[in-house]
Amino acid sequence: MNGAEVTVRTLQDQGIDLCLANPGTSEMHFLGALDAHPGLRPVLVLQENVSTGAADGFARIAGRPAATLLHLGPGLANGLSNLHNAARALSPIVNIVGDHATAHRRLDAPLTSDIEALSRTVSVSTRTILPGRGAAAETAAAVADSMGAKPGIATVLLPADAAWSDAELPDGPLPRAERAGAKIDDAVIQAALDALKTPGAILFLGHRALRGTALQDAARIAERTGAALMAQTANPVTDRGAGRTPVERLPFARLVARERLMDVPVLVLAGAAAPVAFFGYPQERGQIYAPHTRLVELSRPEDDTGAWLAALAKACDAPAYVAPDAPARPDIPDGPLDAAAIGAVLAHDMPEGTILVDECVTNGVPIFTATASAAPHQWLQNTGGSIGYGAPVSVGAALAAPDAPVLAIIGDGSAMYSLQALWTQARENLNVTTLILANRSYRILQGEVGNLTPRNRGATMQDMLEIDRPTLDFVKMAEGMGVPGRRVGDTASLRAALAEAFNTRGPMLIELTL
Amino acid sequence: MNGAEVTVRTLQDQGIDLCLANPGTSEMHFLGALDAHPGLRPVLVLQENVSTGAADGFARIAGRPAATLLHLGPGLANGLSNLHNAARALSPIVNIVGDHATAHRRLDAPLTSDIEALSRTVSVSTRTILPGRGAAAETAAAVADSMGAKPGIATVLLPADAAWSDAELPDGPLPRAERAGAKIDDAVIQAALDALKTPGAILFLGHRALRGTALQDAARIAERTGAALMAQTANPVTDRGAGRTPVERLPFARLVARERLMDVPVLVLAGAAAPVAFFGYPQERGQIYAPHTRLVELSRPEDDTGAWLAALAKACDAPAYVAPDAPARPDIPDGPLDAAAIGAVLAHDMPEGTILVDECVTNGVPIFTATASAAPHQWLQNTGGSIGYGAPVSVGAALAAPDAPVLAIIGDGSAMYSLQALWTQARENLNVTTLILANRSYRILQGEVGNLTPRNRGATMQDMLEIDRPTLDFVKMAEGMGVPGRRVGDTASLRAALAEAFNTRGPMLIELTL
Repeated sequence: MNGAEVTVRTLQDQGIDLCLANPGTSEMHFLGALDAHPGLRPVLVLQENVSTGAADGFARIAGRPAATLLHLGPGLANGLSNLHNAARALSPIVNIVGDHATAHRRLDAPLTSDIEALSRTVSVSTRTILPGRGAAAETAAAVADSMGAKPGIATVLLPADAAWSDAELPDGPLPRAERAGAKIDDAVIQAALDALKTPGAILFLGHRALRGTALQDAARIAERTGAALMAQTANPVTDRGAGRTPVERLPFARLVARERLMDVPVLVLAGAAAPVAFFGYPQERGQIYAPHTRLVELSRPEDDTGAWLAALAKACDAPAYVAPDAPARPDIPDGPLDAAAIGAVLAHDMPEGTILVDECVTNGVPIFTATASAAPHQWLQNTGGSIGYGAPVSVGAALAAPDAPVLAIIGDGSAMYSLQALWTQARENLNVTTLILANRSYRILQGEVGNLTPRNRGATMQDMLEIDRPTLDFVKMAEGMGVPGRRVGDTASLRAALAEAFNTRGPMLIELTL
Repeated sequence: MNGAEVTVRTLQDQGIDLCLANPGTSEMHFLGALDAHPGLRPVLVLQENVSTGAADGFARIAGRPAATLLHLGPGLANGLSNLHNAARALSPIVNIVGDHATAHRRLDAPLTSDIEALSRTVSVSTRTILPGRGAAAETAAAVADSMGAKPGIATVLLPADAAWSDAELPDGPLPRAERAGAKIDDAVIQAALDALKTPGAILFLGHRALRGTALQDAARIAERTGAALMAQTANPVTDRGAGRTPVERLPFARLVARERLMDVPVLVLAGAAAPVAFFGYPQERGQIYAPHTRLVELSRPEDDTGAWLAALAKACDAPAYVAPDAPARPDIPDGPLDAAAIGAVLAHDMPEGTILVDECVTNGVPIFTATASAAPHQWLQNTGGSIGYGAPVSVGAALAAPDAPVLAIIGDGSAMYSLQALWTQARENLNVTTLILANRSYRILQGEVGNLTPRNRGATMQDMLEIDRPTLDFVKMAEGMGVPGRRVGDTASLRAALAEAFNTRGPMLIELTL
């Protein structure tokens, strides 16, 4: 076997079965190894930020890493912004980055660059396979790194000569990486419990606290202690909808958020970080919680928060979980679309088990609020703030859950960052419905103009925040990539288009005129 | 004035009048400063790799830097691969990267990342403006860095608090950066001259050697010494076409290139690097020149090669320049399109002064060969090897030369990397005609399969090298971004579409079915 084959076999032995690829010359032996050792499914993308965003979406839904295959430094560079987002989501990903043959690297050929330096800005580990050795050990270690104490991006450089040189596969498969369980500390549990009994206390949830039994245990603890539940502003996956405990989300708008937390005596952090503003503003504290608010850490974002919440629920002898009654669905208004109307439609029409990828930006809050009454679903958010995450993440989510309806809701400005993802949706016939919220502007920035009150506002600034000239026609762009497109301007048309999309296998794009 | 205003004013004072922008919240005061101090024209793009590629194209044609405006680490990351290409083209560019306010950075808000580390992978300098100081000095120094002894990318971090805090503009404008002239060394001239008189010697040209009087001086030297002229495989700009000295180009195909140089006793490098293969291959030397070939350096790629060639021409008392007769234009075949037929059409139909942006990939050689007889034009190449450079570079070239016809010829796989550039072409009504060579595959990689003879070839590998499923419809995608599109499948239709494009102000896309 050559090094590429050993790498591919080791990825498979470690449980990786998906490779999001945009290969080049230096990755040719890796492609050959995919043919020789089937079981690592390659999915082709047209730009690397689709690879990395899809790997993020896959990790969130499947709970395990996919591999990417990237072409030297520029290939990694193209995928960095979605790796940034994925790192913030604590999504495990294993990047395989092809590099020049070792001897060729010294010659400074055109594609040569400092791949390690790029990798280190987003990765928990950066490893290099050497010709003739390291293929199995480094690959297995990378998979373990990606699922380590702090899950994240593990990057492996595979120089061309390491790929084509003979290499050894160990006699037996290397042990699979397993996530270490939480070591529960009774003193931490007791401190959290004491804090939660403070009148006005909040159990502040993030990451794994918002899913499955962890969320149920949080509800039980709140019931017992009287503490309120609140979620971080952005989380990788939230289980929600009818029959699930609704959790108030800390608003993105920092002034509103700060007012909400103003009188809170203590925040108990469960899988959550202490809340800070997205940006800094003149003469403002960056933290969202009040100076007098006490922070008590039950578990960090990367921890096995489910175990901590279970222990806490047991310690306070919390009552059995009772599923709440579903809130009433909002009435669907006739006529034109706005965020509340879209939310009302989705509250009625989203199938159970929908994976909703939220890149709604300024329209997010009304849609989130309205869909609390929808059938049970999962809600995925952009945890890193780099736009262009929605379309790629929906590719990965659909690959992880091929029979689930995946619904990506994306602002027009964000969508233009990584629209190439549509082509992969068509190629793989993925069940992704993409709603484009076409407000023809970087609306969130128009709001920031008011926040920042720059001394000078004028036509130039305004012009930089509008994307209405020329009009973007997403239906044509989707059709150009093999995805059927519809354009809707009222709730009845939206419902008809959604029915078509959810009843048809494969992708569809619906442009919503706002 | 605030720091953003001082930065904007200083950029203008240093001769920068174009800013390729995709701003976010942290760049809001910079936008305000553009309103307060008109003269730095902002051009909006939909993804940062369009900013950076356009700045590369602008620098190549205008000979001076444009600014980019990028949103924190992810914004810079999105633009890195075209910065990689630009650095290899030695294009001066000044990146302004907004960052969190200094105090906010410590809080690790979602968009926080190591911007300096990203910058250093491509930049000749990375500077940071501090609140209340450094805005003028660091900005002026960055412009100087970009045009320094080794021109390139100069990156300035502008934290939000440095942008909004009061800052001082110096009483008089800071001195403008000027490129240092070459210090001619007679011993170097004499060594080059002696080498060129060796029978079979080649004067190997790159970068500034391929333009204007430098190229004429190279022709005069060749005439006097008997040396042959040859150009590097990829160069930022080559002046060519009827009436200009034709220069053989070292082939990209390494085996052909190596055979061509096999018997060459000496290469005199004028603005060129010693040629190496694009990739390394098993059991092959990476260099393209033979082991016995002597290398003599007249000037490096970053040097003022025009001055060195002028001195060399004088030292050998070279004859006056005589423009060569134009070669005969190839006949245009009837019927379907291939690279030779496209080249023949362009040889006839390209207007004088065309700026041709070459991302033809596998179709490049026949088109290049045929257009030696076209009206005088400039030929721009991808010097860094990261695909997705063509559409953005053509934006910048058109901004630098608004009345010139810009013709971008782009393979379909490459085009999908940065197609968002079309929208900016429409928005700014740029005179860019884009030809998409639609062969529905990563054809160059299909060739590499043969080069590398990986042990395993099969359906999976083949599937990763084809982009025919689903079919990409570039006409629809162009129309979706406000650019008129045509599809042509034979030479007559191509000529008609080109005539329409060249006779109409503004962009057009022509998809060529191959």
